[in-house]
Amino acid sequence: MESVMAQLFLALLHYPVLNRVGDVIASSITNLDLHDLARSCCTYGVPACYIVTPLKDQRVLANRLTAHWIDGKGAEILPDRRQAFKLLKVVESLARAIEDIALKTGKAPVLWATTAKNGAGALPHRDARDLLERGNRPFLLLLGTGWGLAPQILGVVDAVLEPIAGVNGYNHLSVRSAASILMDRLLGRS
Amino acid sequence: MESVMAQLFLALLHYPVLNRVGDVIASSITNLDLHDLARSCCTYGVPACYIVTPLKDQRVLANRLTAHWIDGKGAEILPDRRQAFKLLKVVESLARAIEDIALKTGKAPVLWATTAKNGAGALPHRDARDLLERGNRPFLLLLGTGWGLAPQILGVVDAVLEPIAGVNGYNHLSVRSAASILMDRLLGRS
Repeated sequence: MESVMAQLFLALLHYPVLNRVGDVIASSITNLDLHDLARSCCTYGVPACYIVTPLKDQRVLANRLTAHWIDGKGAEILPDRRQAFKLLKVVESLARAIEDIALKTGKAPVLWATTAKNGAGALPHRDARDLLERGNRPFLLLLGTGWGLAPQILGVVDAVLEPIAGVNGYNHLSVRSAASILMDRLLGRS
Repeated sequence: MESVMAQLFLALLHYPVLNRVGDVIASSITNLDLHDLARSCCTYGVPACYIVTPLKDQRVLANRLTAHWIDGKGAEILPDRRQAFKLLKVVESLARAIEDIALKTGKAPVLWATTAKNGAGALPHRDARDLLERGNRPFLLLLGTGWGLAPQILGVVDAVLEPIAGVNGYNHLSVRSAASILMDRLLGRS
């Protein structure tokens, strides 16, 4: 059993997420999401990043992509990419990710959601960082693809992090950028 | 003439950059680089992001992509993407970007390069932020695609920013992630 102190896990959800008009959908895997999240997680010491999709063919695709970089030609060409891709775990549901973290750490993770929308009671990033520094439980940060996490996710988490505020009200960051900025704010050297 | 106070411009260089084995090359345009940089620049108030490539067919491609989101179908579907893409300027050389900033602001920009490698005399991000806050000149932050900016760029800039340090020595971030984290550190609300 590994130490649970200040361990922040990530999960990139492809379901349930919103599309442009607000329907709950399962979105497609984006190849560069896997690369960018793996590389940022490896940089900031995140022990695992779950790629969550209920669609079997999408999991097969994601596993083919990760296998290329872990055991295939990609691993020979770019060993540092291999190290990063080994952090990705393709799973069918959020429940499987939670279960895996509980098995790894002995405790169920505290669930944090992310959103670009302002809402009452959002957890400031500085407070989240303090919780990680004092934490004796694992944390799992949920990121939504498409137009963000569906309400059924936002309604069951322990906290929703404040959005990343820009300087002028525009805050349509890609999930790749938002994830990287959040890892830097929550885990980067101060 | 616009105010020059604290204006940080960005340039994504596709030449001269290094490839995996250290040769100086011209790299290809990556579609998601344009999206992610445009969206992050719009979020952090960067007035323009130059997409630099000497390859004419690559400039044609980049202009087709940006036109789709500024004047084409993309603009109807996602107006906020339009706002972001309007910040992108496709140019053939760094000299053209510098010239454009000088025309816009009345002053040639201070040039800052980025690198993932540790080097003597690197400018800490906190100091760079201070310079922006006190700055009476425009600044231009240079980002390299491929394996990073070639020595001929690093040798002529006013300063090289310190690399984004992770927590464990691994720092192979994507240029999309690195750009977003740097904008947050240099321009984000503290």
